[in-house]
This record gives sequence, structure tokens and C-alpha cells, in this order.
Amino acid sequence: IGGARNASTAAVAEANAEVKKKEVVGDNLESGGGKNEGLVSYWGVEPVKLTKEDGTEWKWRSFRRRYGCRAMMLETVAAVPGMVGGMLLHLKSLRRFEHSGGWIKTLLEEAENERMHLMTFMEVAKPKWYERALVFAVQGVFFNAYFLAYLASPKFAHRVVGYLEEEAIHSYTEFLKELDKGVIENVPAPAIAIDYWRLPADSTLRDVVMVVRADEAHHRDVNHFASDIHYQGNELKAAPAPLGYH
Amino acid sequence: IGGARNASTAAVAEANAEVKKKEVVGDNLESGGGKNEGLVSYWGVEPVKLTKEDGTEWKWRSFRRRYGCRAMMLETVAAVPGMVGGMLLHLKSLRRFEHSGGWIKTLLEEAENERMHLMTFMEVAKPKWYERALVFAVQGVFFNAYFLAYLASPKFAHRVVGYLEEEAIHSYTEFLKELDKGVIENVPAPAIAIDYWRLPADSTLRDVVMVVRADEAHHRDVNHFASDIHYQGNELKAAPAPLGYH
Ligand SMILES: [Fe+2]
Ligand SMILES: [Fe+2]
Ligand SMILES: [Fe+2]
Ligand SMILES: [Fe+2]
Repeated sequence: IGGARNASTAAVAEANAEVKKKEVVGDNLESGGGKNEGLVSYWGVEPVKLTKEDGTEWKWRSFRRRYGCRAMMLETVAAVPGMVGGMLLHLKSLRRFEHSGGWIKTLLEEAENERMHLMTFMEVAKPKWYERALVFAVQGVFFNAYFLAYLASPKFAHRVVGYLEEEAIHSYTEFLKELDKGVIENVPAPAIAIDYWRLPADSTLRDVVMVVRADEAHHRDVNHFASDIHYQGNELKAAPAPLGYH
Repeated sequence: IGGARNASTAAVAEANAEVKKKEVVGDNLESGGGKNEGLVSYWGVEPVKLTKEDGTEWKWRSFRRRYGCRAMMLETVAAVPGMVGGMLLHLKSLRRFEHSGGWIKTLLEEAENERMHLMTFMEVAKPKWYERALVFAVQGVFFNAYFLAYLASPKFAHRVVGYLEEEAIHSYTEFLKELDKGVIENVPAPAIAIDYWRLPADSTLRDVVMVVRADEAHHRDVNHFASDIHYQGNELKAAPAPLGYH
């Protein structure tokens, strides 16, 4: 999430730095480096421009630029809120002998949809061992934190998820830009994506990112709506659940 | 659950006591009671036969006999395991970057189905305030206990649920007997049941209990199967999930 926060503004700076980078290819760090007058990034630290001995550019393999991998990592977190919220609503329906208004299904569907995002991007970006370890650790923390948050204030919890989805939409937009620039290779869509979203057989990664981004937009709307319902002092079941979009 | 355990054998004794009761109607407790030579129940305590002043029988409104109410109470518990199991499988799929084999959907469907049992029986048996309070307390305990049990040993958790479903089937069989004897009134099926199970419009409570019992049989099979998979040393995803029955 910190990564997304940094990246959302840095991406603009990087687009400019991209141009600059092409101009300063050839600076050799071994010779003490030249004066890199590239653009200052968000944190005031210049992105390092490295070259190999033969003068070709050393691609900066930072987390920010590998959108396929980052999408995959973030989806492991994104699939948690829907499941936690759905489960807590399920338990409430049981102990209060109340109807759900369709919201349990809505939230569980969101969780399943995010999990399918993960299953899809797994085909594109193979996770490294340290990325897997990070996911493990983050899940332990985030699951408990969101569980408690939802118990304490579903209004707050849904609002947070709404904003996280907005960040996700921005990330996928940047992903699309990188695809269109050719920085990320526009591979054919994985079979699981073609099946799940019922895409045409000749679809590409770009088409997949488009439908995934559309899903995120829907989740944004659902969660902001859910939070708004709470802001009006109602339970979710007071308003019709947004079902039937998947 | 203690109630179900008691009732499953006591129900047989009660069937015999039923006959006896008809014979001893008229015993008046105010006159010091007669010698009640009725059958001894499971706990060795004779069911009390009470009459009102005008000689009509005082129906014994114990928990055991009110199957509609008891079904409703037990369903508030029955809907928990599927949701807990489904959620834990969901989290595992995320953090291990593994496919689910369809089992998340299977368990979540079971939870939703049990919740529909509750929504249905709510129409038939209106819960009293103390029954609601009991459900509240039980949920707090059972949810946590089952969560920990599933973390520690899904094999054990599924086996327990399999046996609980077997008890549920027995309870519903007794429910059917009471309906057929006329002790419980065979009211028209509630609209929610006709919609959910797509029953004919002239269905009765008996028809509903039949389909509910069929659901419980399916859950029994699923959970025992799931436990068997673990007994063979496999993860659930190693075997095809029993989907498509609901
Ligand atoms: Fe997503
Ligand atoms: Fe999302
Ligand atoms: Fe049930
Ligand atoms: Fe059951």
C-alpha cells in the first residue's frame, strides 16, 4: 500500500524520467558516474541509472515497475476484506435471526473475484520465495486488523476498501500504459482468464487488465456505497445489494 | 448439541410414553398425583404428566418436543462450520498461490444452505428472547472453537461436522414422525421455502422437512468425504469437490 502510494505520483515523474533516461544511457557507474541531472523522484532520490560493461542499460527491476508482479501481490490482500465482511454479516444474520438483503453474497463474490485476479496474474508473474514470504506475513497481520476493524466499524472498513480499490484502478491504469509503451510484453491472455471472463480466444494481457480494472471499479462502487449506507445510520440490509454484475 | 444427543434416544422412549400418556390423562397433580407408572426416560426421570384444573392435558413444552424450534436453534450453529472452513481455505489459497479445487465454493454453499434452513424455520417457530440470548452466547463460543479446530486439524473438524449432520438427519426424521402423528401441525410451507427449493405451491411443512433432511444428508457426505481425504494424507484440492448439487 505504501508502494502504491509512492508509485501513484512517482509514475508521473518516471514518465518524464523515461525520456531523460534514453538521453543519458551510457553513463557508467564504474567510472564514478556522471552528473545525473535526471528528474528528482517523489522522495527526492534520483532513480539510479545503471549500465552494464558493454554499455547496455541495466533495467531497474524495482517493485514499482513490475506491475504484473505487484498486481499479483496486492491481490493476495485484496481478496481478504470481502471474505471477512461476508463472514461477519453471515454470523450476524444467524444470531439475530435476520435476513441479509443479499449483502453476504455480494461481499463473498468480491472476495472470489479478487482471488481470481490472483490466480490469473500468477500465470503472468511467477512469485519469488521472498515475495511468498512477504505475502504470508502480510496476511497474518491484515486479516486480523481488518477483522477487528469490521467489528468496530463496518463504515470505516468499507470506506478504506473503497479507497484501496481506487488505488488499484490507478495501478492498473499505469499497467496499461506500460503495456502500451511496450515496456511490459503484451503476452497472450492466460487460459484461466479467458475462461473466467469469457474473453475472445485471441485476447491479450492488455484485455485482461482492462476487465480486471473494471472489476476493481465495481468493487470501489460497492464498498463506497456500503460505507454510505452506514453513514446514513442504516444496516446494509436496508438497501438492495448490488448483485448480478459478475 | 447436548439436547440432540439426549433426544435421539429419548425420542424412542417418548414414542412409547406417548401411548401411555393418553391412558393416564386425568391424573390431577393438585390431588397429590397418582402413581405414574409411565416409561422411564433416558435420564431415568419420568416425564411429568400435568393436567389443568378442567382435566385437559397440559402439553409438555420442553425443548425436546418442539422440533420446529429446535431445528431453528441448531441451524444457527450448523451454518458456522461451512463459513469458517471456506474462509480458511480461501486464505490458504491466497497465501500459497494455489488453486482451490472448488472446495471453497462447496463449503460456502453449505453455510448458505444451512442459513436458508434457519430463515425457513424462523417462519415456523418464532424464537423467544431467551432462545435468542442462548444463540448469541453459543455463537461466540462455537465460532472460536471451530476456527481453532479447523486450524489445528481440518480432518477432525470435518469428521465432527459429518457426525453432527448425522444427528441432524435423525432429528429431522423424528420431526417427520411428529408431523405424521399430528402432534405438530403440518402447516403450509413458508413462501421462502417454496422459492428456495422450488417446491410446488401446495407444499407443506412436511415437504420442507424432507428437502432439508436431504440437504443434511448431502452435507454429511461432503464432510465425511473431506475428512477421508485428509485421512489419506491429502489436501482437499487433491480430490474433485462435490459441486452442483444445490
Ligand atoms: Fe483485484
Ligand atoms: Fe480490488
Ligand atoms: Fe441444516
Ligand atoms: Fe446441517
